[in-house]
Amino acid sequence: MQKLTIIKIGGNVIDNSENLYRFLEDFTSLEGPKILIHGGGKIATETSASLGIEAKMVDGRRITDIETLRVVTMVYAGLINKNIVAQLQAKGANAIGLTGADGNIIKAKKRPVKEIDYGFVGDLDENSVSVTSLAHLLQAGFVPVLCAITHDGETQLLNTNADTIASAVAVAMSAQYETHLVYCFEKKGVLKDVNDDATVVREIRSVDFEPLKADGTVAGGMIPKLHNAFEAINKGVTSVYIGKADELNEIALGTFGTKLSP
Amino acid sequence: MQKLTIIKIGGNVIDNSENLYRFLEDFTSLEGPKILIHGGGKIATETSASLGIEAKMVDGRRITDIETLRVVTMVYAGLINKNIVAQLQAKGANAIGLTGADGNIIKAKKRPVKEIDYGFVGDLDENSVSVTSLAHLLQAGFVPVLCAITHDGETQLLNTNADTIASAVAVAMSAQYETHLVYCFEKKGVLKDVNDDATVVREIRSVDFEPLKADGTVAGGMIPKLHNAFEAINKGVTSVYIGKADELNEIALGTFGTKLSP
Repeated sequence: MQKLTIIKIGGNVIDNSENLYRFLEDFTSLEGPKILIHGGGKIATETSASLGIEAKMVDGRRITDIETLRVVTMVYAGLINKNIVAQLQAKGANAIGLTGADGNIIKAKKRPVKEIDYGFVGDLDENSVSVTSLAHLLQAGFVPVLCAITHDGETQLLNTNADTIASAVAVAMSAQYETHLVYCFEKKGVLKDVNDDATVVREIRSVDFEPLKADGTVAGGMIPKLHNAFEAINKGVTSVYIGKADELNEIALGTFGTKLSP
Repeated sequence: MQKLTIIKIGGNVIDNSENLYRFLEDFTSLEGPKILIHGGGKIATETSASLGIEAKMVDGRRITDIETLRVVTMVYAGLINKNIVAQLQAKGANAIGLTGADGNIIKAKKRPVKEIDYGFVGDLDENSVSVTSLAHLLQAGFVPVLCAITHDGETQLLNTNADTIASAVAVAMSAQYETHLVYCFEKKGVLKDVNDDATVVREIRSVDFEPLKADGTVAGGMIPKLHNAFEAINKGVTSVYIGKADELNEIALGTFGTKLSP
C-alpha cells in the first residue's frame, strides 16, 4: 500500500507567521501523498471580538452559536485556509483547501442536546469520511488542506474538533493507504520529565502504554491524547507521531517526537 | 466533445436566500458537468461595516486594500462559498468550493499601479486558468464552485471580478469541452424595450451585433457585456447565455434569456 501522511497543526503554528512559514516549508518537502488538517487559533477569537460577538461559555465549555459558526466559517474556511493554500502553492505543493462539506469529505452529526447545548458542533462516526473523494484528490496530485468545519448533509455547516477530524481521516484512509498520522503540539513529544525537552520518549508501543501510565510517565492531558492515538492504531493507522511542528523534517530521519506504534 | 455548462451568479441571487435556494435547485438538475462561479453581494459590505472597515473609493472606483482583502477572503471563500457548497451537497450535487489558489485553478497578476492603485486586485490572461486541475475535478464527478478570489502564485491572494473569471474559465475549458457560459443578471436577457421583460431577443449571432448596436436595441451597459460575450465566443466558447437566474431550468427548453452564438 502507498504511504499517506496526515498532519494536524493547531493555533501555536497558525498564530505565528514565522512558525507557519517554516512548517509549510517542511510540510511541502515531505515525500508522497499528504493531507494537512488545521485548527483555528487566535484569529477567530479576535475576529469575533472585532464583530462584537462574545465567546459563549456554558459550564466552562465553549458553545458554537449561530454567530460564532458564521465567524469560524469565515476565519477557518476563508482567511486561514486560503492563506495556507496560497503559501503552499508558492512552495510548489498543489494544495486544495476544503471543509468537510466540499466533496462531502466529512459528514458530521450535530451533537445532541443533553445537559449542555453545544450549538452547531458536529460529531463524527465511522462513516463520516468520504475515502472516495479524498482518494480522487490525492490521485490527481492535490494536497488536501482541511479546516475544522464539517456539514450534516442537510445544508448545515458544523464546527468540529480538528484533532478528531485528523484521527477520523487517518482511520478511514487506512482502508486504501499505509497511513501515518502526525499531531503537532507545543511539546517535543511525550516527555519523561514534562519540564525537560531532552527527555522525549522516542517510541511507545501499544503494550508499553499501561506501564507508562502506571509509572507516571504518561499523566494528565497526555492520557486521553495517547488513548485516542492508540485507538486510531487499533483501527488500522500504521503509526501516530506526536511532536513539535518545527521539527517536522526529522520525520524522515526517524527522530521526530514520540512515535506510537502497534 | 463533452458539454460543460459554466454559470455565473451575482449579488442579486446570493443576497436573497429564497432566490438562492431556487437557483441551486435548478442548477443541481442541469445535466452533465458544470461549474458555478459566484460573486459577493451585500454580505461583504455588511461584514466590512461591522468590522469598522470603510469601503475605500478612488475616483469612483472601489479599492481592495489589505483589510478589504481579508474581509472578502472571509466572506466570499468562507461564508458564501461554503454555504452554497453545503446547500448543493444537500441537493445531491457533489460540490467542491474553491478559490483560484486551490489547485492553482486561477493564477492572476496584481493590477499594475497607474493613475489608480486598485490594491489587491488580480487581472487574468490567457494562461491564468488551470484546465488540468478543473478537468481532474470534473472527471472525478465534482461540481466546482468558484468564488472571486485568485492568487498570484507567490502567496498573495487577490480580488478578481467574477464575470471575468467566468469568461476566462469558459474560454480555457473550451480546449477540452463544448463550453456553454451562462451569465445570470437582473434582467430576462437582452430586451428590445428595456422596460418590458416580454421583449427578450432570443438569439443574437455575431453578425447581428453591429446592426443591433446601430438600431439602439443594444445600448448602454449592455454593449461591453455583449462585447465580452462575443469575445469569449471568438475564443472557442460554443454559446453564451444572458438571463435571469430564476429561469435557469428553461435552458434545457431553449427558452432561457438571450443566446449569443457565433
